[in-house]
Amino acid sequence: MAVVSVKQALSGSIEAGSVVTVRGWVRTIRESKGGLSFVNVTDGSCFDPIQAVVTDKVTNDENEVKHLTTGAGLIVTGTLVPSQGKGQRFEIQADTVEVTGFVEDPLTYPIQPKPHTMEFLREVAHLRPRTNLFGAVTRVRHTMMTAIHRWLTEQGFFWINTPIITTSDAEGAGDMFRLSTLDLANLPRTPDGKIDFRKDFFGREAFLTVSGQLNVEAYCLAMSKVYTFGPTFRAENSNTARHLAEFWMVEPEIAFADLNDNADCAEGFLKAIFKAVLEERADDMAFFAERVAPDAITRLENFIAQPFERIDYTDAIEILKNCGQKFEFPVAWGIDLQTEHERYLAEKHVGRPVVVMNYPEQIKAFYMRLNDDGKTVAAMDVLAPGIGEIIGGAQREERLDYLDRRMVQFGLDPATYGWYRDLRRYGTVPHAGFGLGFERLLVYVCGLSNIRDAIPFPRAAGTAEF
Amino acid sequence: MAVVSVKQALSGSIEAGSVVTVRGWVRTIRESKGGLSFVNVTDGSCFDPIQAVVTDKVTNDENEVKHLTTGAGLIVTGTLVPSQGKGQRFEIQADTVEVTGFVEDPLTYPIQPKPHTMEFLREVAHLRPRTNLFGAVTRVRHTMMTAIHRWLTEQGFFWINTPIITTSDAEGAGDMFRLSTLDLANLPRTPDGKIDFRKDFFGREAFLTVSGQLNVEAYCLAMSKVYTFGPTFRAENSNTARHLAEFWMVEPEIAFADLNDNADCAEGFLKAIFKAVLEERADDMAFFAERVAPDAITRLENFIAQPFERIDYTDAIEILKNCGQKFEFPVAWGIDLQTEHERYLAEKHVGRPVVVMNYPEQIKAFYMRLNDDGKTVAAMDVLAPGIGEIIGGAQREERLDYLDRRMVQFGLDPATYGWYRDLRRYGTVPHAGFGLGFERLLVYVCGLSNIRDAIPFPRAAGTAEF
Repeated sequence: MAVVSVKQALSGSIEAGSVVTVRGWVRTIRESKGGLSFVNVTDGSCFDPIQAVVTDKVTNDENEVKHLTTGAGLIVTGTLVPSQGKGQRFEIQADTVEVTGFVEDPLTYPIQPKPHTMEFLREVAHLRPRTNLFGAVTRVRHTMMTAIHRWLTEQGFFWINTPIITTSDAEGAGDMFRLSTLDLANLPRTPDGKIDFRKDFFGREAFLTVSGQLNVEAYCLAMSKVYTFGPTFRAENSNTARHLAEFWMVEPEIAFADLNDNADCAEGFLKAIFKAVLEERADDMAFFAERVAPDAITRLENFIAQPFERIDYTDAIEILKNCGQKFEFPVAWGIDLQTEHERYLAEKHVGRPVVVMNYPEQIKAFYMRLNDDGKTVAAMDVLAPGIGEIIGGAQREERLDYLDRRMVQFGLDPATYGWYRDLRRYGTVPHAGFGLGFERLLVYVCGLSNIRDAIPFPRAAGTAEF
Repeated sequence: MAVVSVKQALSGSIEAGSVVTVRGWVRTIRESKGGLSFVNVTDGSCFDPIQAVVTDKVTNDENEVKHLTTGAGLIVTGTLVPSQGKGQRFEIQADTVEVTGFVEDPLTYPIQPKPHTMEFLREVAHLRPRTNLFGAVTRVRHTMMTAIHRWLTEQGFFWINTPIITTSDAEGAGDMFRLSTLDLANLPRTPDGKIDFRKDFFGREAFLTVSGQLNVEAYCLAMSKVYTFGPTFRAENSNTARHLAEFWMVEPEIAFADLNDNADCAEGFLKAIFKAVLEERADDMAFFAERVAPDAITRLENFIAQPFERIDYTDAIEILKNCGQKFEFPVAWGIDLQTEHERYLAEKHVGRPVVVMNYPEQIKAFYMRLNDDGKTVAAMDVLAPGIGEIIGGAQREERLDYLDRRMVQFGLDPATYGWYRDLRRYGTVPHAGFGLGFERLLVYVCGLSNIRDAIPFPRAAGTAEF
């Protein structure tokens, strides 16, 4: 008697006639007039449940099986046999059924075998992984995250865990969460009445990081190929379907790379993730295509099949100006592209992913490398049909004198960036990198409409989880 | 002309006589009387640098090569040839050398080719990955972290990103960092003068998580095998060589598992990590064995070679009482084992890793399963020679009535654990899991003596990084 997962039992890798044990939860149950119970058992290992056929002779206490309802925990042992039913290759002729836990008050159990609204499921986030949809999201999330590590490792990258707690606002990107162990009801004060952060845990003000990029550059200039992949925080008060206060970001950084190398890496990276999803989660993706987004599979296939287009920002502006389409935000050289512009370029003009390169220097961050024209920096955004910007990146300014000038231009004090400037003083090399917000990509892959459905424990508007 | 990593160039996989380009930084340079320069180039891809032999005809501007010093960034193109020297299989006869960045003021460059103290290197954490030691630590860290994901994925586990920001103190484990976007200089107040956290970002008090375990249990009772792996925070004011405010923790959780299944998983898990290190980082481990801890390799080999011992806590207490060894902390049934006890058991009594199981219920957390004796819970610690406790885990209390009683016993209000209790109301199943602090394991593998050397950016005492 072997304990197997539902995935293994359904895979065809176990010989028919074997006695197996599966363990999981009842998805649905129905009884035939002939005294048989058909129990669909899921354990999360794959999309499909396995059907256990239970006769009334199976357990000594027949009432136990009779009282099973959706969500009950159980252990089924029996013979694996080819299924008579449609859509399933194997089923189990049960010999024993052990119930580990019934469902208290089945009528009020939140996860009924019927459609629920996404809003409702966010309120029962601890139970929603038991639904078809969130089981699939969880498996696809895992496959995408591990594919990221696998591909980067194969390419020779090292994962660097840059600090979550930081004392600097790396990019000036949005509001930050302050971190403190001070007693707020009794804050220590300096003689002139200000809050005395020297008494705080780190002896100074501390925040949650908004990006590991500056830190990871230090490792890039020693290990050549590195990446961060971890939680990142933005205290933006934007309760939208597109923003999270806490999200995962992956940020590869490559030494001796220019903007084209960077775009090559971003393209290979995205394609590897999508390839892993299509190969490893075919069952879940079939569900998304059937129930959520009809083109869920084909758009990933198209994404992989063709090379990305590359367009200079200046050319992109000309294309947008002359395309005859009306935009809400007027188009002129110097603007930051809006989602409507990005989607026009990717969906209408090119019809596949496009990398827009070399943006006006005024609208991009201080650490991006000034091009020889003096007007643009070596920045890039990857735009994709159906989503718009999916990756942002740049070649970094590796020349100390240029970096200092851009810091001053952006109102930053070079003296406070001592260690970052050191990287340009000691063996500087060209380097480039990009960042990808993981949940936005997951939303795209699964066809979700709210980013809170792409994290395991969503927060309701204005409140922390639960 | 192919661009290759130093690892590839040294691996023997490239045919001798090929023209290759390597890119990296000067580790050392020396000149022969015959006008040759021998430049050791490292790019972080492996422990050893590759030697480039540079004649004075190589570049048009011979002064450029003559001015190279340790740490300079450069690109070398030339012919890969078998090396004449000892200890290296291949070297490059350089045709061109392009310097991308010299070292400003070489005499004050912090990373000289000589030994530095660990204290000094913590002050230049942005440059220390350029040393042999921290290059090796970085590569071993990567291998261990990716081995964790790989092994758990192979075993059918799903990675769950439990929230970093939380509104509950999961285990009451140590001080927590408060998170806020309130203006501390001007805190909002309720009518009765208290701080009005309804005005804070999440509408209530929020903290950084100390463990993802309770959250991940919800996913365990849907997906069967899950784990968290992410940063975890403890605001303990313990400036010791063993504690970090921010560290990475991995927490697998298994449905339908008891304490023995849990111990099996912990054993397979640790062995898989160590096997990956020995196989993938033989060069780095040889360095640790030569320079840091002579038994760095053999102790991992011993760890893998034998099955772990398992001892009941009650038996362990008898062993300690009767062993004739004097301990600082007296031994009696009911005590929490101290490091001296743990090390005696692992090092002297067993001589290999040992799992101590079934601890007194009073000294363990509320969520651990009460054994039938009514006195102990199904908790376990994995103790290893040379380090003591390395993993802590437990079978969880899956019976609602028992859980409620233990909550009350520990002074917790069951009403505030609504969603956690739900997991016991709806299809409860036996489940178990464990937690491992990643940096402690890395310290053990590399033979480091201070845990701040196991993170990429250490914090000096009482201050945030840099």
